[in-house]
Amino acid sequence: MLVSAILTSVGINSALCVLFFVLYSILKKQPGYYEVFIPRLLAEGNSKRRSRFNLERLIPSTGWLPKAWKLSEEEMLSSSGLDAVVYMRTITFCLKVFSFAGIIGIFILLPVNCSGTELHQIDFADLYSNSLDVFTISNINLGSKWLWIHFSSVYAITIFTCYLLYRVSSILCSYRLLSILILAEFDHLQSLFPGTVTEYNYISSKRIAYFYSSRPQPHQFTILVRNIPASAGGSVSDSVESFFTEYYPTTYLSHIIVRRTSKVQSLINDAKQLYKRLLHLQSEPSEQKCKQAGLFGQKVDHYGKRFEDLEQNARLEQSEVSLAKSTITETYQYTIFLKYFKSHGGSNCTLNGMFHNKFFTHHLQDTHAAFVSFKTRYDASTVFHMQQSINPTHWLTEEAPQPNDVFWPFFSSSFMGRWISKLAVVVACILLTILFLIPVVVVQGLTNLSQLEVWFPFLKSILTIAFVSQIVTGYLPSLILMLFLKIVPPIMEFLSSIQGYISHSEIERSACNKVLWFTIWNIFFATVFSGSVLYRISIFLDPKNIPSKLAAVVPAQASFFIAYVVTSGWTSTASELVRIIPLICSLMTKCCAASTDDEIEVPSIPYHRDIPRVLFFGLLGIAYFFLAPVILPFLLVYFCLAYIIFRNQFINVYAPKYETAGKFWPIVHNLVIFSLVLMHVIAVGIFSLKKLPLASTLILPLPVLTLLFNEYCRKRFLPVFKAYPAEILIKKDREDQNDATMSEFFDKLVTTYQDPALMPIQYCADSDSLNRPLLSSAEM
Amino acid sequence: MLVSAILTSVGINSALCVLFFVLYSILKKQPGYYEVFIPRLLAEGNSKRRSRFNLERLIPSTGWLPKAWKLSEEEMLSSSGLDAVVYMRTITFCLKVFSFAGIIGIFILLPVNCSGTELHQIDFADLYSNSLDVFTISNINLGSKWLWIHFSSVYAITIFTCYLLYRVSSILCSYRLLSILILAEFDHLQSLFPGTVTEYNYISSKRIAYFYSSRPQPHQFTILVRNIPASAGGSVSDSVESFFTEYYPTTYLSHIIVRRTSKVQSLINDAKQLYKRLLHLQSEPSEQKCKQAGLFGQKVDHYGKRFEDLEQNARLEQSEVSLAKSTITETYQYTIFLKYFKSHGGSNCTLNGMFHNKFFTHHLQDTHAAFVSFKTRYDASTVFHMQQSINPTHWLTEEAPQPNDVFWPFFSSSFMGRWISKLAVVVACILLTILFLIPVVVVQGLTNLSQLEVWFPFLKSILTIAFVSQIVTGYLPSLILMLFLKIVPPIMEFLSSIQGYISHSEIERSACNKVLWFTIWNIFFATVFSGSVLYRISIFLDPKNIPSKLAAVVPAQASFFIAYVVTSGWTSTASELVRIIPLICSLMTKCCAASTDDEIEVPSIPYHRDIPRVLFFGLLGIAYFFLAPVILPFLLVYFCLAYIIFRNQFINVYAPKYETAGKFWPIVHNLVIFSLVLMHVIAVGIFSLKKLPLASTLILPLPVLTLLFNEYCRKRFLPVFKAYPAEILIKKDREDQNDATMSEFFDKLVTTYQDPALMPIQYCADSDSLNRPLLSSAEM
Repeated sequence: MLVSAILTSVGINSALCVLFFVLYSILKKQPGYYEVFIPRLLAEGNSKRRSRFNLERLIPSTGWLPKAWKLSEEEMLSSSGLDAVVYMRTITFCLKVFSFAGIIGIFILLPVNCSGTELHQIDFADLYSNSLDVFTISNINLGSKWLWIHFSSVYAITIFTCYLLYRVSSILCSYRLLSILILAEFDHLQSLFPGTVTEYNYISSKRIAYFYSSRPQPHQFTILVRNIPASAGGSVSDSVESFFTEYYPTTYLSHIIVRRTSKVQSLINDAKQLYKRLLHLQSEPSEQKCKQAGLFGQKVDHYGKRFEDLEQNARLEQSEVSLAKSTITETYQYTIFLKYFKSHGGSNCTLNGMFHNKFFTHHLQDTHAAFVSFKTRYDASTVFHMQQSINPTHWLTEEAPQPNDVFWPFFSSSFMGRWISKLAVVVACILLTILFLIPVVVVQGLTNLSQLEVWFPFLKSILTIAFVSQIVTGYLPSLILMLFLKIVPPIMEFLSSIQGYISHSEIERSACNKVLWFTIWNIFFATVFSGSVLYRISIFLDPKNIPSKLAAVVPAQASFFIAYVVTSGWTSTASELVRIIPLICSLMTKCCAASTDDEIEVPSIPYHRDIPRVLFFGLLGIAYFFLAPVILPFLLVYFCLAYIIFRNQFINVYAPKYETAGKFWPIVHNLVIFSLVLMHVIAVGIFSLKKLPLASTLILPLPVLTLLFNEYCRKRFLPVFKAYPAEILIKKDREDQNDATMSEFFDKLVTTYQDPALMPIQYCADSDSLNRPLLSSAEM
Repeated sequence: MLVSAILTSVGINSALCVLFFVLYSILKKQPGYYEVFIPRLLAEGNSKRRSRFNLERLIPSTGWLPKAWKLSEEEMLSSSGLDAVVYMRTITFCLKVFSFAGIIGIFILLPVNCSGTELHQIDFADLYSNSLDVFTISNINLGSKWLWIHFSSVYAITIFTCYLLYRVSSILCSYRLLSILILAEFDHLQSLFPGTVTEYNYISSKRIAYFYSSRPQPHQFTILVRNIPASAGGSVSDSVESFFTEYYPTTYLSHIIVRRTSKVQSLINDAKQLYKRLLHLQSEPSEQKCKQAGLFGQKVDHYGKRFEDLEQNARLEQSEVSLAKSTITETYQYTIFLKYFKSHGGSNCTLNGMFHNKFFTHHLQDTHAAFVSFKTRYDASTVFHMQQSINPTHWLTEEAPQPNDVFWPFFSSSFMGRWISKLAVVVACILLTILFLIPVVVVQGLTNLSQLEVWFPFLKSILTIAFVSQIVTGYLPSLILMLFLKIVPPIMEFLSSIQGYISHSEIERSACNKVLWFTIWNIFFATVFSGSVLYRISIFLDPKNIPSKLAAVVPAQASFFIAYVVTSGWTSTASELVRIIPLICSLMTKCCAASTDDEIEVPSIPYHRDIPRVLFFGLLGIAYFFLAPVILPFLLVYFCLAYIIFRNQFINVYAPKYETAGKFWPIVHNLVIFSLVLMHVIAVGIFSLKKLPLASTLILPLPVLTLLFNEYCRKRFLPVFKAYPAEILIKKDREDQNDATMSEFFDKLVTTYQDPALMPIQYCADSDSLNRPLLSSAEM
């Protein structure tokens, strides 16, 4: 690819970015779009809808930039949680690494590369027509002594990256421990994680500690027990009760059996829709009301009928006749109630929640899983860590997720079902990888213009136009790839959700990993080894030749990846600001439906989409740093954009729904280590290709040392991200003993892990109640 | 190799075996050899030295065979522990597998192989001159339908082996749990591990349970804590005390700091030797006494000097002058004592143990490790399972070994020292593997007679003699290999001992693994891929072609491995009976020293030598089962020999010194799975070599299913071998609460984990005390 093609792409994308910025700063000020651009501020009540019109609203402004810039990490920690901090830390980590790499790359490596004559001499007179290859390591002459500069820079960047990684890890570790640590312990923590003190004000850190330590959280006291063996006569609940009262009589608090609620959930959804329809009916003129009332009546009948079916099933499953009889009575009452609901047009009616609850708890199937709560954090953690039963496949313990983080549908599937879906997910991932080859091949064809002309001879005339060919080679390929990549995160999230994780955050973490490796395999390796999946697999089955093969093909793709950074990095990050899809949705609803009284839904940031993207650019940067340092300025621009834009979005748009409390960091850590080792492998190959076998041999200790460093970090930091140490738990428990509010907390704890489908539902026809969430389960 | 060569080898080895049997049954009856052949019975006082001579003693008898045969598993469990049961179970497991395999192999596969004509037709007239290859799968014609019989037999043996493996695992699991389970729980256990009941009498199992459950064991109540951070002012002991009294005030019992005692240990050894010399001096005539007394005096002086040196070091390490002063006084006293010891010729003197103890505890360096004891098993286990400190590299917890199982020298090395020795062990293992190539290459040369003639032309005339050439090709190669292999287990044990394990049993387990994989790599793969280490590594770096390469070379080595089974298996197992090396040692001491009053040392069986051997024959059998079924009868004879001989040795010779409580079983399990997968890989290669690609493809699900089975077993059985479940621990603890002897046990527990080097030493010149162990530490 020529320099001019890259510049075309840069030009187009820069223009797009500027456009997005301008659009954002105008649209943001329009009250009509508040729920798109500042939903979080709206929901928190920090911003009011000003409907007065003034001219200022139409002039682009940059007032939001300093605001985003000034946001301190402690503010972010308290408002968006540790996950947001991990995400921003990842970006700043990359910024620091590539600032350092950029200085070496641009001021040392680039001149060296240009001085070579292996490919062709650089044409300073007409820079545009130079091939990008003259700026890469390919241009260095064979056996040149200049390669030792590349060699040293590989060592330098590895050491710098590892140092930074260690620092960031220790800071995040201390944050994570702070999340439940008591105030007085902060001094102790600082001695354990040196480096965290220097850059943060001691007082401000205390404030965070105070924030986190202020209240006990239900999931700290609870574990999830699975594969509970049912005792001969009794129910699963009896079996849990007897097991824990026998072995943990002093510490066991309560338990809640998880039930299969998928049927109930769908019924509730139906009821919710019916209710909405009903309200809609009320607000319409009376002549239409009469017409629709008939239809509506049919729906209610249908609902009643389905409910009776469900009851029938429940009755069949019950062996005791007496219970079945009472069920019939209850259902009859329920049907009566529905009739009443229908005849009175739904006004002023309240569904008797307690009755509802009692009805379902009697008749729903148990899942052999239960949330078991204990009186102290330490005891819950003890039970989680130890094998409970003689049979190691029974009474399996897991840490409980936060109550609003539980993924309830999972519990509805049976054990066999979960096993099969796990296998299905593996197959689906493989299929996705193979199918994804199609767009990649198309993209490959586009970068290779001459091949395209062979495939589609009729395009020849168009492609001879310089601008068109520049767009086709410089811009189109990465645009297509980008669009196809957009659909990967939702697919992966779906796949993870049927894989058997018990919490939303676990699903997201698993999806994040899937998307990450999918991206690396399908973008990096597929672009580098352009060929079939089988060809790529065959390369990895022949480990001896990987370095030489990588060294031969990686530098050649530098220009493609520069274009990719510019397109996928710059533009899609800038488009994040404008939130294109929510904007379109908002426009659509405005056109179709007049009512804007819907509750504001504050979105949470999809980490499984954004973390892999940042990490992939990190991988590109590290892998190409010494091969083609031209890529570094483009990456730096990307990371700067991401830094300012995501800080802004955390203030205005995204609010956390649940926390993994920093569990994304190990993914980041692993990928950085992988990137470094990949760079070393490429370096080994390059130096032997360039006839400098000594350098090639001297690189070998580097991956070994990097992996040893990784091993050390795993020992030092990973345990903190997995579970809390006994020391902290015991101290925190002791502090709570003197807390008067704890008994209230324990009272609530008993019902916290109730499935929302089984919670009392309150439908009130008062119009002001519409803005409240329909299910009261979220409030605890 | 020809049939006649194999038969020569079989003949020689059978003769040797018979010789060993006759020798054993005669020598065993001679009172002079009792300490060689029945040390255990002697030590237990079950057998008295009869010195009356009668003719019966010179006639070979078979009386010991039925005795060994009749030994029941429960007797073995109570007398030799679970490890012995695991070992015998491994042998019976192999016996069962190869009985089944033998029936299929000899009656179905062998006739099929002989019917082939691919290599050459079998010559029934002169069976001797047939090459062994006609009995292998190589003789089957390409694409023959008969190969489907081999295909089905591979499936059959895999299913049968996995079934047996499951059964044995469940039986051993239940044994392991029985080791601490209470009596009443046995019914419960039987329902969890079905199959254990059917073959064992319920009552007898109850007896075992009673035996095991009768007394609490110190290691169940204790954990080892390492990397204890020293607090600013205080000692490590203070830091342990304050940590555990703060966090576990109700359950913490006591602790013992581990100290560096290597110097003291060597001083004590010196003193022991001096003491022995002194006694010897006393028993000698007076004119020699005078002459040696001078020398002896010099030794005592030397001893005193070294002691002063040690004191000097201790003083240098101490910063407090006052302490140093008191040390000087103490050492002075000590030296005075030694002078006294010298002047009085050592008669009737008792080393003041308490003084000794106090002296060392003051001045020995702490190791930042401590044995911490708790009041219940459950609490010890809890602390072991949880991360204790905020810094995950501090307060590391491990399960404590049995007190007599602790490997004290380990604690004497520093952290850095341990790290370096770990690296050194890796390097040493690699070197050993490379150096071992030399004997293997020699052996390879011997089997290939024509090549030998090329190397050593002068041997040509000798090698033309049929008998010589048969010995050289049939017997010598495996004999040489066997001798070289004899030295591997001690080397590996030494390497494991410097690798940082805290107990003898862990060292043995690690050595067992090392020896096993060394054997597989250096015997199986080196013989099969005769070539350099680098060549072998290059094969495994090219995973695609492993099946075809294995299939090409493995069948060709069948005859070598048959000879190996006969030599290494039969003869060395039979020689185990005669105990050649102890016998020689006994003969030597009888010739040189007249005194036979030494205490009887009961040896423990070196599992790291014997388990890998049995497993390697298992691997050979499974790998060659469908390739060359001729090997199976030879293997069956080997396993029968091993079965009867080792049962006999467990009765008469070996007594357990420490227990791993069945932790060798996972090694056995893993190797059987590896053998099965190896067989599948070879099968894939063979069927494609034989132009039967369909069979080759249909084999593929088999390794996948085997690995899934393995995964299931890891979930189901492995946790039981790692740690005890909470259920059992709590029950057992509750039972102990009512036990009156527990307070006594706890009193003892406090000092159980004292380093023997720091225990009071009692030297008494009374001659009757000689048979008692010198160090009283073993008695607790």
